[in-house]
Amino acid sequence: MEKTKKYCYGFCLLSSIVINILFSINLYVSGGGGALQWGEKKHETVYRPSLTWSEKAAAEAEAVAAISCSGHGRAYLDSLISYGQTVCECYDCYGGIDCSEFSPDCSADAGGGDPIFLEPFWMQNAEKSAIVVSGWHRMSYRYADYTMMSSEVEKYIRKLHSIVGNAITEDRYLVFGIGSSQLLSAAVYALSSENSSSPSNVVATIPYYPMYETQTSFFNSEDFQFEGDTNSWKLNNATKNNMDVIEFVTSPNNPDGELKTSVLGGKTIYDHAYLWPHFTPIPGPSDHDLMIFTLSKLTGHAGVRFGWAVIKDKDVYEKVSKYIEVADLGISKDTQLRVLKLLKVVVEDDGTQLFKFAYAKMRERWDRLNSVFSKSTRFSIQERHPLHCNFFNKTRLPSPAYAWVKCEREEEDDCGAVLEAGKITSRGGSTYRAKDRYARLSLIKSQDDFDLLLLRLTELVSLENGKIESI
Amino acid sequence: MEKTKKYCYGFCLLSSIVINILFSINLYVSGGGGALQWGEKKHETVYRPSLTWSEKAAAEAEAVAAISCSGHGRAYLDSLISYGQTVCECYDCYGGIDCSEFSPDCSADAGGGDPIFLEPFWMQNAEKSAIVVSGWHRMSYRYADYTMMSSEVEKYIRKLHSIVGNAITEDRYLVFGIGSSQLLSAAVYALSSENSSSPSNVVATIPYYPMYETQTSFFNSEDFQFEGDTNSWKLNNATKNNMDVIEFVTSPNNPDGELKTSVLGGKTIYDHAYLWPHFTPIPGPSDHDLMIFTLSKLTGHAGVRFGWAVIKDKDVYEKVSKYIEVADLGISKDTQLRVLKLLKVVVEDDGTQLFKFAYAKMRERWDRLNSVFSKSTRFSIQERHPLHCNFFNKTRLPSPAYAWVKCEREEEDDCGAVLEAGKITSRGGSTYRAKDRYARLSLIKSQDDFDLLLLRLTELVSLENGKIESI
Repeated sequence: MEKTKKYCYGFCLLSSIVINILFSINLYVSGGGGALQWGEKKHETVYRPSLTWSEKAAAEAEAVAAISCSGHGRAYLDSLISYGQTVCECYDCYGGIDCSEFSPDCSADAGGGDPIFLEPFWMQNAEKSAIVVSGWHRMSYRYADYTMMSSEVEKYIRKLHSIVGNAITEDRYLVFGIGSSQLLSAAVYALSSENSSSPSNVVATIPYYPMYETQTSFFNSEDFQFEGDTNSWKLNNATKNNMDVIEFVTSPNNPDGELKTSVLGGKTIYDHAYLWPHFTPIPGPSDHDLMIFTLSKLTGHAGVRFGWAVIKDKDVYEKVSKYIEVADLGISKDTQLRVLKLLKVVVEDDGTQLFKFAYAKMRERWDRLNSVFSKSTRFSIQERHPLHCNFFNKTRLPSPAYAWVKCEREEEDDCGAVLEAGKITSRGGSTYRAKDRYARLSLIKSQDDFDLLLLRLTELVSLENGKIESI
Repeated sequence: MEKTKKYCYGFCLLSSIVINILFSINLYVSGGGGALQWGEKKHETVYRPSLTWSEKAAAEAEAVAAISCSGHGRAYLDSLISYGQTVCECYDCYGGIDCSEFSPDCSADAGGGDPIFLEPFWMQNAEKSAIVVSGWHRMSYRYADYTMMSSEVEKYIRKLHSIVGNAITEDRYLVFGIGSSQLLSAAVYALSSENSSSPSNVVATIPYYPMYETQTSFFNSEDFQFEGDTNSWKLNNATKNNMDVIEFVTSPNNPDGELKTSVLGGKTIYDHAYLWPHFTPIPGPSDHDLMIFTLSKLTGHAGVRFGWAVIKDKDVYEKVSKYIEVADLGISKDTQLRVLKLLKVVVEDDGTQLFKFAYAKMRERWDRLNSVFSKSTRFSIQERHPLHCNFFNKTRLPSPAYAWVKCEREEEDDCGAVLEAGKITSRGGSTYRAKDRYARLSLIKSQDDFDLLLLRLTELVSLENGKIESI
């Protein structure tokens, strides 16, 4: 008995001491005021200091991110709070407190260009892409170098283009804008002839992104005016010399995804919003005088409102910069901080992670879309031609952001209305100054949106086949 | 011996178990995967979940914030990184790796309107004002209600005005812009007469903020043109009827801090950038058709680029909204998230914390400034008249953001040059279309900037007195 007791004493003490040591290690590594913590990474162990002022914000962000909304909605830090609870913002066609209720008769919205297809990538890369903004982060109008642009962001943009091989940025100037939207307008101002007797003519090739016309008309400057389709303009002004003209070239084109080049060969604004490997093979670096890019269609962050122009000529660069300064006194410093973090993730492993994810997603969507349209004679979509992609180093088909649908039946000359009747919201051809026999379907929205679009398209096409069979 | 041993076994085991229990409690409350943590607050104890994806970003932010830069500079998350170290960005007149080196001959820069005087407030409120932005935060162009404006931010702006009592927002529309800058321009577009035979005349009372003229001239619209000083315009156009005119009224005025009202009484844009208790007594709520405010001069966050317009008329509201949409497709969602967090701090305790801090700072600066200028006959500054402030519920002097200095000696008709010779950078009167006998000194920059300004002013004034004595 005494022996057992002693044995117990001995064993218990030993095990107790072992446990103490284990706890001590755990305590040491897991924190407590000022101690260091082990952070978990897959292949390495890093030390992390314990947190003070940022911890509450981090806990808030994680708590909101943990609200699932049934996978059919999202809760954000700035979502409505009701009775102390953050309210789920449900995706289209879903409702209820937790977004679990699907409306079976709901139309698929393939209208807008919200690039939510990339959201899962950022959720998978949550740790790498999060930022903490302190209350005193960059309160000044300017950076330390007296500019309004972060030189670190500029560095990463140049690195990105060099990795992707989609644009020459060496010996070029960069200007940041509020999305590409602001830069489109700034570019027209910069290229138009001041103090000329007549305003510069602004043109774009049909079908074109409507913003060019909207902005140019809205700002109603004495220095320029919108003159519509490039080819028509060329035809009507063939005999006139020295006409001052600014040509928009959207490549790949919105809405139809085609790679385009200048028709007139004069002053040109290249809108390269979609010139990324997920949408198009990259045949080589674009090398034009004025090229505009946007974060929106690169990383999917439309809400961030960030774009950039790559400019060859110093005088044009100064005019575009002046526009940004006069319009807004520069771009939000918070935005630039977030852009920097996102770009750091994009360029990791030479960009393979984001672009592989994004391209796989777009290719899968096109495969599914094709399989539906291949069964249809009533609807067709744009032809796609393979090209060698320098980035992926293989020949591949483009996988554009939008399907450009044609209604083939002669009597169906309003394709948007035909689709709408089939519970699909599209954008009609006339939005792009094309015929309404065409309509644009967005393929870059959320998975829920795309899945519903596919369902509605399948229903439409089966109806058509049913009809054919019944003849 | 045996007894001692047994005693030791017993005591050691007991103490070991006690230690185990203590460690267990500590481990439980201090974290480990999924356990809860005690957070420290002065008067309460709260549970905090342990962090996962946000922890790295939080640690990065705290590490950068911990770099002191000798108190004469700042390191940011997006500062340059050199040899693995974040580089200090030194304030004007300071240099060296840790910003500890002061340049004794350096000029005091009192030119710009960077509102850094509020930075210490946000450092003191670090925990409350920090935000964590996830990689997937609001990627869409729009909020759940299909607008581009956060309804939560709108709610807090209305609450703020109601607390401060500086503007009526009931039954008014709000529109957000990129700083007030963009809204100034949007307002001119909204108020100008489209399709009129002649452009609207835009005027402002001298001395006026130069942006009004710069923007109006730069955008060179067919719908409006800048026509200079309001009073001159009134004099020259006294006999003409039905002239279409848009009047800018800046109240308190930049540069001289005066509370102003409309001269013409027609279409008016009230620029209320400085209508906050730290700069002026608040005599009562402003109740005009179109009022513009900016975060920059409220919280000091110029770099955030956020402003808002309060608009009575629905048609004008729609035009201003349209402008923001056409120009940029809305305001950054990150910016709006940050604004929300900052406004939540501002409205805490009915706004007393921020406004007390800010007013105390401005009053102290004015007291120090007055004591220097009171010894001078060579320089004078604007007179200030006491008014009842509804917010602080007392009669007090204004404490404007800028000193409007006059050089009194007849031969010194370029006051900016006189100050420059005394190592003070100001903005000359002609910047505001006033005489160069005047110059503006910024009083809202960092403490280092203000201290150096005071030093240089004291040197200048002692020189003057020395001269007088030597006569």
